Amino acid sequence: MTDSAPHPLVYFFGQGRADGTAAMKDVLGGKGAGLAEMTNLGIPVPPGFTIAASLCSTYLETGGFPPRLRPQLEAALGRLEAATGRQFGGTVEPLLVSVRSGAAVSMPGMMETILNLGLNDTTVEALHRLSGNASFAYDSYRRFVQMYGGVVFDLAKRPFDEALDRRKKAAGAARDIDLPWEALRDLTGEFKEIIHKETGKNFPDDPMQQLWGAVAAVFESWNTRRAADYRRHHDIPDSMGTAVNIVAMVYGNMGEDSGTGVAFTRDPSTGERVLYGEYLLNAQGEDVVSGIRTPEPISRLRERMPEAYADLERVSRTLERHFRDVQDLEFTIERGHLYMLQTRRAQRSGHAAVRCAVEMVDEGQISEEEAVARIPPNDLNQLLHPTIDPKAQPDLVATGLPASPGAASGAAVFDADSAEARGKKGEAVILVRRETSPEDFHGMVLAKAILTARGGMTSHAAVVARGMGKPCVAGAHEIEVDEEARLLTVNGRRIAEGEIITLDGSTGRVFAGPVKLIPPELSGHYSRLMGWADGMRHLRVRVNADTPADAHRGRDFGAEGIGLCRTEHMFFEGERISAMREMILASDEAGRKRALAKLLPMQRTDFEGIFRAMEGYPVTIRLLDPPLHEFLPKEKEEIRALADEMGKSIEDVERTISRLSEVNPMLGLRGCRLGIMYPEITAMQARAIFEAACTVAARKGRVQPEVMIPLVAHVVEFRKQALIVRQVAEEVFRERQITVPYLLGTMIELPRAALTADEIAREAQFFSFGTNDLTQTTWGLSRDDAGVFLPDYLERNIIEFDPFIELDIGGVGKLIAMAVELGRHARQDLKVGICGEHGGEPGAVAFCEAQKMNYVSCSPFRVPIARLAAAQAALAERGTMNRTRATV
Amino acid sequence: MTDSAPHPLVYFFGQGRADGTAAMKDVLGGKGAGLAEMTNLGIPVPPGFTIAASLCSTYLETGGFPPRLRPQLEAALGRLEAATGRQFGGTVEPLLVSVRSGAAVSMPGMMETILNLGLNDTTVEALHRLSGNASFAYDSYRRFVQMYGGVVFDLAKRPFDEALDRRKKAAGAARDIDLPWEALRDLTGEFKEIIHKETGKNFPDDPMQQLWGAVAAVFESWNTRRAADYRRHHDIPDSMGTAVNIVAMVYGNMGEDSGTGVAFTRDPSTGERVLYGEYLLNAQGEDVVSGIRTPEPISRLRERMPEAYADLERVSRTLERHFRDVQDLEFTIERGHLYMLQTRRAQRSGHAAVRCAVEMVDEGQISEEEAVARIPPNDLNQLLHPTIDPKAQPDLVATGLPASPGAASGAAVFDADSAEARGKKGEAVILVRRETSPEDFHGMVLAKAILTARGGMTSHAAVVARGMGKPCVAGAHEIEVDEEARLLTVNGRRIAEGEIITLDGSTGRVFAGPVKLIPPELSGHYSRLMGWADGMRHLRVRVNADTPADAHRGRDFGAEGIGLCRTEHMFFEGERISAMREMILASDEAGRKRALAKLLPMQRTDFEGIFRAMEGYPVTIRLLDPPLHEFLPKEKEEIRALADEMGKSIEDVERTISRLSEVNPMLGLRGCRLGIMYPEITAMQARAIFEAACTVAARKGRVQPEVMIPLVAHVVEFRKQALIVRQVAEEVFRERQITVPYLLGTMIELPRAALTADEIAREAQFFSFGTNDLTQTTWGLSRDDAGVFLPDYLERNIIEFDPFIELDIGGVGKLIAMAVELGRHARQDLKVGICGEHGGEPGAVAFCEAQKMNYVSCSPFRVPIARLAAAQAALAERGTMNRTRATV
Repeated sequence: MTDSAPHPLVYFFGQGRADGTAAMKDVLGGKGAGLAEMTNLGIPVPPGFTIAASLCSTYLETGGFPPRLRPQLEAALGRLEAATGRQFGGTVEPLLVSVRSGAAVSMPGMMETILNLGLNDTTVEALHRLSGNASFAYDSYRRFVQMYGGVVFDLAKRPFDEALDRRKKAAGAARDIDLPWEALRDLTGEFKEIIHKETGKNFPDDPMQQLWGAVAAVFESWNTRRAADYRRHHDIPDSMGTAVNIVAMVYGNMGEDSGTGVAFTRDPSTGERVLYGEYLLNAQGEDVVSGIRTPEPISRLRERMPEAYADLERVSRTLERHFRDVQDLEFTIERGHLYMLQTRRAQRSGHAAVRCAVEMVDEGQISEEEAVARIPPNDLNQLLHPTIDPKAQPDLVATGLPASPGAASGAAVFDADSAEARGKKGEAVILVRRETSPEDFHGMVLAKAILTARGGMTSHAAVVARGMGKPCVAGAHEIEVDEEARLLTVNGRRIAEGEIITLDGSTGRVFAGPVKLIPPELSGHYSRLMGWADGMRHLRVRVNADTPADAHRGRDFGAEGIGLCRTEHMFFEGERISAMREMILASDEAGRKRALAKLLPMQRTDFEGIFRAMEGYPVTIRLLDPPLHEFLPKEKEEIRALADEMGKSIEDVERTISRLSEVNPMLGLRGCRLGIMYPEITAMQARAIFEAACTVAARKGRVQPEVMIPLVAHVVEFRKQALIVRQVAEEVFRERQITVPYLLGTMIELPRAALTADEIAREAQFFSFGTNDLTQTTWGLSRDDAGVFLPDYLERNIIEFDPFIELDIGGVGKLIAMAVELGRHARQDLKVGICGEHGGEPGAVAFCEAQKMNYVSCSPFRVPIARLAAAQAALAERGTMNRTRATV
Repeated sequence: MTDSAPHPLVYFFGQGRADGTAAMKDVLGGKGAGLAEMTNLGIPVPPGFTIAASLCSTYLETGGFPPRLRPQLEAALGRLEAATGRQFGGTVEPLLVSVRSGAAVSMPGMMETILNLGLNDTTVEALHRLSGNASFAYDSYRRFVQMYGGVVFDLAKRPFDEALDRRKKAAGAARDIDLPWEALRDLTGEFKEIIHKETGKNFPDDPMQQLWGAVAAVFESWNTRRAADYRRHHDIPDSMGTAVNIVAMVYGNMGEDSGTGVAFTRDPSTGERVLYGEYLLNAQGEDVVSGIRTPEPISRLRERMPEAYADLERVSRTLERHFRDVQDLEFTIERGHLYMLQTRRAQRSGHAAVRCAVEMVDEGQISEEEAVARIPPNDLNQLLHPTIDPKAQPDLVATGLPASPGAASGAAVFDADSAEARGKKGEAVILVRRETSPEDFHGMVLAKAILTARGGMTSHAAVVARGMGKPCVAGAHEIEVDEEARLLTVNGRRIAEGEIITLDGSTGRVFAGPVKLIPPELSGHYSRLMGWADGMRHLRVRVNADTPADAHRGRDFGAEGIGLCRTEHMFFEGERISAMREMILASDEAGRKRALAKLLPMQRTDFEGIFRAMEGYPVTIRLLDPPLHEFLPKEKEEIRALADEMGKSIEDVERTISRLSEVNPMLGLRGCRLGIMYPEITAMQARAIFEAACTVAARKGRVQPEVMIPLVAHVVEFRKQALIVRQVAEEVFRERQITVPYLLGTMIELPRAALTADEIAREAQFFSFGTNDLTQTTWGLSRDDAGVFLPDYLERNIIEFDPFIELDIGGVGKLIAMAVELGRHARQDLKVGICGEHGGEPGAVAFCEAQKMNYVSCSPFRVPIARLAAAQAALAERGTMNRTRATV
């Protein structure tokens, strides 16, 4: 064969040699590549051949097969006959085959399977003779006709199942297996009649015709709606196509010395190094999954068939070592002989993923880099938060957005005060609100979890919950919350205050009643893995933390500084909100300054605590950002109380509230616009920061404040605010007789700031991308309002991901990349980071690595995920990831 | 002098020759260049010299003069002495000079002037002897000391004026001129004492010391706060500096055969070709402007001094022909001899600008291109709208934003119903609202003008008023509107319903009472000029029009199609809003479709009218854009009425209103998001468009519908909506048995659309930039809320212009340029236009030309402005503008 000869269309495997290898997944699909590789390894695999996936699109485009396929297929069939010593369609020793689809990437539920192909009224008799087992022969036949009806004739299972049930009833048979062979034979005939009745076509008796029909049906299955949707959703190109595997049948249903099963080379839940799985005797593969018979744990196989078990163990070790990863195996035992039917990379729990990776390093199977590279970062969530026991069968009542991971059970309460009161008594409560606002904060602190009917992934509830590491399901639209009646209604069911509900914030599910939870656990394996990861990454990982407690939690999770300290959260508690409101209601600068003077010592104390918690690490403090109306009460009663407290009339207070109300608060008087209109606020905050920094520095603490001006659209806004901060810093340093080095930078959260990043970088020492607001403005999409249509957008594939969860690299990312380039061009040593909600999202972390940013910052519980993702991004840059990902 | 020799610092002019020319404005300033050019033309100009503007920054940086200045200045002074035959500081024939600032660009009110420099107690006596006029000599002296005190010693006018008043009182003199010379002499001494008392310094008697002091003071005046602010505001570089002009004095105050005045070579109000201006006999320049004496019209000079008048007329013609533009002249007549002191390009009214330009073409003075290039496009506003009579002295009560040009008087009314009721009776009413909403539309139609206390240049009131060509003042924050009490309060004054007020929408001013207005007039000159302009431009100019009436008006103004037809405005009237509300309140798709079926014929009729009005031109129709809650009532009473009408409970209606309410409606469920959630709306609108198009086409009308999908952020949104529109189009074409060519495109109004313009252009046939929303999202700035702080930003120079009025080329423009490039790269024949409020703003038009867009679209009354601006932009591309702008 010369170089210019076309690639073969059919790849044979058998008798210890295969035309293909594991590296040829693109041609053979995952299953075919695995079969080829196992054959080459000398592992017992029934012989067979694979039709190349490239034929799939040819078939779908032309509606037929290229002429050169037939001779190649017939040649392969000839080799298969030779390898098995049987004849396809033979009346003495008939060759039967399975036909299975198998694409390069695993597509769960997209798998088409036909077993026992080659049977007809003649060959079944030969099989009967050959096996000496009429039940086996006719059971195989009726299975084949049913599967063929489903796959090739696209018929539903139901008429077949009903016919089977009628036969069982007539025969008084409890199990399929108890049917006499005559009943099975008649059933096969009945199945053929069903096919004829439903499709007007006859079941093909000619094995060759059966085979071509099966191959065509597998190719056609590539274009079902379900498969096409799955591919679009997972970014799998339509052109990939599926291969077709045609394999000589081996039989697990030849009697009690036969069986079939699945096994994992290690426990996929715990990661323990032990053969794990289950099997059924006298069964074909479909019986294991159908749930009609209950499979037995694989450990029992050791007792039942010690030799086959020993073979399986040996094969398992060989395959794991060969593929250097935990394998998910399918096998059949035919009259005591083990045959492997599939090997692929095993899915596993977060715990298992970590343990397996670390132990495989210890065993010398993989490198530390490979261990780090292969853990999906979000799997760490399972190690950090309680999870729903997978064995539980909870009562699902609604699904919302998975806004903050972890699971919790507790009594539903409908307002923050109740949450606080009951929480303080030690009761587990779940705060249920239409949506939360800063005034609910005290209740959120004492709730175990938060459920909202409105709001998205970056709604107030979601952001605060993630910050606190509490589970949160947000935007569960099916739920109607009646806060006054203290009741939630969902699809006609009512859950009243005090009734127990359970949330799974990792999946967005809401359950009625308590559900068994599995507590989180950080193992030594985890610590070792993270240690390796830290050594590999370039990106620093910081935490978004507003309080000393958050800061400590962040450090516990490995944060190397604070990337976003939101000062406004400090203003919501007790006395503080009073002083804040006094400031807002003041009629002149002098009044504002009096109120700010009350806030100064409180804010200074907070900063001291935070600086101490983060000693030796940088702390980025964002100046006041939200619109002032967020600090004012909404309810009539509270307005009255506030008016009394401030010695103002209710009308005065209402007038201020109305004056400050905005049509689009997101785009209104907030961020640095506040500091420009009320420079005294900026001055007070700067003073609190620098006084706190000097206090800590005076006691030999290392402080690195980074003052961040928010919502800059135009460089002059930055310049004006920077001037105030610098003046105050100098004043404080003079008063305290000590100087603290600090940086002055800005949050890039508006498209215009990104577009003019060069101008801004000439004056700002760092950029921190606020990707939440940048996403909102770039998309013109309010995160508070998007909940009404974004779920629909996702469901209908209008967008492929929620841009508030995954960073929109094609849009927002383009702006960020432009800003980084413009900014670094204007200031070489510009420090660049990201502090929006995307900071802990692995895709975004990889993007930040590619942009050569200095750090990412995220909520405390996402810090480990970001650390791992950052290491993986660094490895990917070096090419290590690609190598490890090339394994099956 | 070799090439490497430094440029001279001092430029002499006199005796028919000047070192400088008109082309050297950068060196000599405008005034110095004019004096030099006039000298070279042989026009009588008193001799003098100019110190180069480049010295200004040297002086300001070093605080002193370079050594080489002194010899050059002394040499020039020597030449001046020779030219005049007088000696600087001479006791027989003393040379006196004026010292005046003069930068390359005119900076009104930044002009420093000292006259009669060189006088002291000795030289004044020589002047007395020489003139034989003691009053003249001492009047000149006291004026000099006062001006010197002001300019050099930075003293206020007041103590000098008080001293003068005391003297006049003591002498019983009514006018300055009536004071006896002794009183003037004593006054001069008193002025010197004032200087000593206020500054501790002595008035310098030495003329050379006087001269250096004056030059330094002129340079220092460049850095006053006022001047620096003016430059920053007008983008004038600080480095430009001012030149200093030192000119031999000529005297208009030498008696009744002397005088001084200003003249225009044509009437600056009407453009009539007649010498226009005013003069005073026996006076110095400052008297003309001070207002103490009333100048006489220049026509009187012809009778009083026929020779001088004839000289002035001749000079005027010479200068106008030489500079090829209307000139603004200053002159002095000394004992019957005319001296020209300044010539510069004359400011003129819009009417005059057009008439002068056209007539100068007819006279062969300038080309048609020059005529087109020199009219400031916004000056056309004065031709299109009534204006306040410049002679009126109205009672200004507040100033807001100049939201829609033109002036109107009428009775204040505070709600739309009153406006409609009174307006229908023929009364002129002005609708005053806190802010307007679509529900006020019927009142706006009948009001003469609109005044709002809140909202910006692109608030509802502003946009609607501009569309209707009605004057509007928006965001007049000083005004409090009490709609219930039917009263406005402004700075303590109250104006009740029915009281007459006057608005000037071109300047944002609000007056109490009626004010005399000048009606608009479109002359033949205007038509000819616009005809030339149309022949020069590349950009097509379309109109934003929502009704057949708007479309007709747009065509009258020269629009070549509709660039933006907002379909939602069609839904607000009478029955339509009922059907719209029925659609919104419908609980399912069937209910929505029933309501939409009622809207279909109405919308189809509208489109028919619009297509007919725009026959032969393209019509871009934007599908429904605003959030649905805009169509629902807000007041309790209206909600009740709506509930009754729809047969629903008040609670039902309120629930829908609450469900549809949004935190940030600008970023919520609107634009194509509506069409995606409710495809039946898109289908109905598409049907109305294509049915109307087919109807018109069937009667041989040429229709070019361009269907525009709004608010696309992601290409898939466009794809989904485009599919519906195309399907409906095919259906209608099939039903009607006729095909109408149409385009399908999108509005680029979100940053993400601009960033992914290549993806979108692969599917969309045209882009129309919606610069209003693009500005809002790029800046993160709600136009509804920015009114609270944007004026402050402008006042404090944080931003140099309102981005909702002028296109932000450095930010938003960057996005647009990127989108045009990406879009054209993906689709070569992509049609590109702009339809936001900037479409008629000359700066934006020039930007669109530079981007090689196909068209701009704007409100009807801005169409002529856009046509002219487009022609100028095309000329600028060819370099014609630069040439014509190089003239003085």
